[in-house]
Amino acid sequence: MKTRDRILDVSLELFNAEGEAKQTAVDIANALDMSPGNLYYHFKGKEPIIEALFDRFEEEMQIILGGSHGAVTSIEDNWIFVYIVLEEIYDFRFFYRNVGDMMERYPGLAHRFRKILAMKRQAIDNVLSQLEKRGFVDIDRRLRPALVQQMLSTLTFWLSHDLIEGSDRDGPSLIHDTVLQFMLLVVPYMGEAGADALDGMLERRRDLMKA
Amino acid sequence: MKTRDRILDVSLELFNAEGEAKQTAVDIANALDMSPGNLYYHFKGKEPIIEALFDRFEEEMQIILGGSHGAVTSIEDNWIFVYIVLEEIYDFRFFYRNVGDMMERYPGLAHRFRKILAMKRQAIDNVLSQLEKRGFVDIDRRLRPALVQQMLSTLTFWLSHDLIEGSDRDGPSLIHDTVLQFMLLVVPYMGEAGADALDGMLERRRDLMKA
Repeated sequence: MKTRDRILDVSLELFNAEGEAKQTAVDIANALDMSPGNLYYHFKGKEPIIEALFDRFEEEMQIILGGSHGAVTSIEDNWIFVYIVLEEIYDFRFFYRNVGDMMERYPGLAHRFRKILAMKRQAIDNVLSQLEKRGFVDIDRRLRPALVQQMLSTLTFWLSHDLIEGSDRDGPSLIHDTVLQFMLLVVPYMGEAGADALDGMLERRRDLMKA
Repeated sequence: MKTRDRILDVSLELFNAEGEAKQTAVDIANALDMSPGNLYYHFKGKEPIIEALFDRFEEEMQIILGGSHGAVTSIEDNWIFVYIVLEEIYDFRFFYRNVGDMMERYPGLAHRFRKILAMKRQAIDNVLSQLEKRGFVDIDRRLRPALVQQMLSTLTFWLSHDLIEGSDRDGPSLIHDTVLQFMLLVVPYMGEAGADALDGMLERRRDLMKA
């Protein structure tokens, strides 16, 4: 593995585990068992490391969210799609725990984070359009923007909400619970099929808990 | 006005306008046109000021949220109730812009903030129960926890979401938009009355925009 990649992997692990705000370049060098001088040769401080990690996150999110065209043809597909998005966010969770704080301390990330928000909004819109086209849901067009906003907010603040509530769920449980939370938002728009779909979703969540 | 109250009023204004993280006790003294020594006579630093402001916020929220028993007998009452809650949060908005960050920097506030979250959850539950009892809404009991969670999340992250999206709405517009966002969550559970209720809500929002 290239040193540059190893630095990014270890930094990501450290930020996710300990929070990013308190870590210095020297802490990162220590975690890598590397001299600060050697680290500096690869990255001129903590900020370029954060930016390089955001590059990775952005690239992966672009691929995942870009796949929302045509890929989601059923409620089950939708479940898996949301799961993949949340898993990706979880891998880079230090960006999300205190989003506002991160954006204030790294103003350069603010417009890039907004771009990701816009991509998420577009992906949600695509998925809903496909579910509508296939007749799975029927959403009053005047309620649609509010539904999209709720979904976007769920994808953005699930980690902050969990942090504030101080639950002690592990990562996979939290991700599965959040997929369920997200999916339940469409149930009221499924008409008569909603009750069965709801049973299916709750059962799926229970199965995933056992797995 | 007592000096102590004037200190709290000016600090609140300063934190809301400029963010709390960057302000020092000296900045607060300057904003009050007071010597740091005189400020210190009343408050031994910034943290006790934050705590005293949280005391105020907590007391007012307790009164407002405690009023959720029996007070809400219609969709219109519900609208006004949510408006009052959001307006109160807006008055103390510096606590909410970066909730996670605040709780990390002032661990003493974390459990008190959680108590307020629990009170909000209870109030939402009361309001939904009343709307159910009066037959305004019919909510599948398996969907109810997810709906409560979505409402709670909206009441908690509306300011962070607005901050991240970088909208330039003024306070009253943002509050009205958020009340609407909150209220639209119950529309899918209103059955046939939903369409008329939705018209009413959108009209109300338009009227408030003009006012």
